[in-house]
Amino acid sequence: MIHPSALISPKAKIGKNVSIGAFCVIKGNVEIGDNSVVEEYCLLGATNQLTGEEPLVIGMNSLIRAHSILYAGSSFGERLITGNRVTIREKTIAGKNFQVGTLSDIQGYCEIGDYVRVHGNVQIGQKSKIGNYIWIFSYTILTNDPHPPSNVLIGARVDDFSIISTHCVILPGVRISSHCLIGASSVVNRDTEEGCIYLGNPAKNIGPTAKIKLRDGSGESAYPWTRHFHRGYPEEIVKKWCK
Amino acid sequence: MIHPSALISPKAKIGKNVSIGAFCVIKGNVEIGDNSVVEEYCLLGATNQLTGEEPLVIGMNSLIRAHSILYAGSSFGERLITGNRVTIREKTIAGKNFQVGTLSDIQGYCEIGDYVRVHGNVQIGQKSKIGNYIWIFSYTILTNDPHPPSNVLIGARVDDFSIISTHCVILPGVRISSHCLIGASSVVNRDTEEGCIYLGNPAKNIGPTAKIKLRDGSGESAYPWTRHFHRGYPEEIVKKWCK
Amino acid sequence: MIHPSALISPKAKIGKNVSIGAFCVIKGNVEIGDNSVVEEYCLLGATNQLTGEEPLVIGMNSLIRAHSILYAGSSFGERLITGNRVTIREKTIAGKNFQVGTLSDIQGYCEIGDYVRVHGNVQIGQKSKIGNYIWIFSYTILTNDPHPPSNVLIGARVDDFSIISTHCVILPGVRISSHCLIGASSVVNRDTEEGCIYLGNPAKNIGPTAKIKLRDGSGESAYPWTRHFHRGYPEEIVKKWCK
Repeated sequence: MIHPSALISPKAKIGKNVSIGAFCVIKGNVEIGDNSVVEEYCLLGATNQLTGEEPLVIGMNSLIRAHSILYAGSSFGERLITGNRVTIREKTIAGKNFQVGTLSDIQGYCEIGDYVRVHGNVQIGQKSKIGNYIWIFSYTILTNDPHPPSNVLIGARVDDFSIISTHCVILPGVRISSHCLIGASSVVNRDTEEGCIYLGNPAKNIGPTAKIKLRDGSGESAYPWTRHFHRGYPEEIVKKWCK
Repeated sequence: MIHPSALISPKAKIGKNVSIGAFCVIKGNVEIGDNSVVEEYCLLGATNQLTGEEPLVIGMNSLIRAHSILYAGSSFGERLITGNRVTIREKTIAGKNFQVGTLSDIQGYCEIGDYVRVHGNVQIGQKSKIGNYIWIFSYTILTNDPHPPSNVLIGARVDDFSIISTHCVILPGVRISSHCLIGASSVVNRDTEEGCIYLGNPAKNIGPTAKIKLRDGSGESAYPWTRHFHRGYPEEIVKKWCK
Repeated sequence: MIHPSALISPKAKIGKNVSIGAFCVIKGNVEIGDNSVVEEYCLLGATNQLTGEEPLVIGMNSLIRAHSILYAGSSFGERLITGNRVTIREKTIAGKNFQVGTLSDIQGYCEIGDYVRVHGNVQIGQKSKIGNYIWIFSYTILTNDPHPPSNVLIGARVDDFSIISTHCVILPGVRISSHCLIGASSVVNRDTEEGCIYLGNPAKNIGPTAKIKLRDGSGESAYPWTRHFHRGYPEEIVKKWCK
């Protein structure tokens, strides 16, 4: 299960039944939970002058796809799933079953809740706070510098169940309230009202998410999405959503 | 020609005169055509629970640049050329001389015709259908979920000779007709009319492509581009375009 | 300091006190200055049919982060700092202390001055000319083809001290004058006036940069940024800015 070409520090804590692919580099500060898979060319526990040698903790049943880089000083709950070439910098604290797509770049010093899904090529700036059951789509960025370059870093905040579509810019310090939907290519420059759709540059409130209908012929509303989309969530959570 | 550090399954079918770079991983389901070059750190034939061990077939005279990842279950005609760090997921079927730039991410379950050129950092969503002689520029995304997250996937379609500029979003199910030009940073939310320019968010028809003049001093129209741009296409095709 | 798994050509010129990480490939045309660090999986001196075997020259005190690829035929002054997975193609000439973030792609044939900072996931097209003390933020692209596809390449130009925010498109041949600020998600289609803010698609002049106030409670203007942001610049330069 451990490929002979992988370079694994004897100090690393590798759980039971963990698979590690060819040409991986696993540093001594790494802890990997049971039944996890680390694919080829992954670099785990990378350090820099800011991280020191703090532990990188990866929960059980995780899948780290090929060419990913995870720095020291971060921790992830069980069932972390990364795409290929994901970069996660130091001091990122994520809950259960964080899924983060190919090429995405989490810049560190972030808090991420449970069951967050980030598609490919997303950039999450330092000091971002992301709640639970969030969806963020490709090429979207959460920024943090109100007048770049500066020493002021104000992270964005995204509340539970919200969806940010592709190619959006969330400006520094903005709070996306729960159950919002941010349309494609929007620039969000102020806090949003719960359960509403925002669209444009600057993004404007164009009404409640409930007005978007499912395209499956049912005639029902597509939002809140928790009513119809359950793939990958535990049964007990889905029951709560649907009662 | 095969670097000694490359890990090549004895089951892989490697053509004549193929070069494979340092630290490559080539799985047993891979077939590489004659005279191809695979640069350093490439992972070919990656599998997951969806692909099984289906073959990855790469046509002759191909060039796979360093750090690329191609999954099982895809096939490419002759002269595939990738940039660095390209990711191509399972069940991507592409024709001859597909050129795909640095960092681009083809998410699988796609059909791609002949002589398609995709620049760097493009994302092609699942179920996209791309014709022949297409150009797609950097940071553009072909999306597929009309009300994310959902179980409905409706791919976009791009017809022959069309050009999609940088930073565009093609919304789910949209068809870009042949010979269209989509301007930079546009969001296309409905089908387009053949041979027209679309621009904006949402993208609007601003007239025929023929009104754009070449900036080479000739005073001639820049479109259809097949009249003046022939680099990299076979002579017999160029003759057909110019007769 | 040189990891035993690194593949280093005996012709490469490696300075004193240089560290080279696991699984690196360093070709014979590479010169690395003293006290530099090259992290894991870097490919330095990559060649193609356009580069030939020209030297890749990296100045002293540089840091090349893991998974980066630098081609032959480029040169960098002292203290080059790259993020992870940076790609820099041939014939890129950069001055002192060029900092370029994770996933950024410099496409070659570019001139870059001193103390330029490029964040992650930026694409700098061929023939771009970038001055000194510039900031370019994530997902921004400097384009070069006025009517793609074509054989006409007209690079963009960015003058000293300017800032281009995230998700911008700089169209071919456009000149961003010194001390400009281009707002997020803008498309710049014509030359800009010195010291002004541009915003929108197409970007419009919305006034002097001086009208943006610092968000640190001081009530002072945030621009020119050289008055308040000095991190990473040499003392003699900061003195000149502040006198």
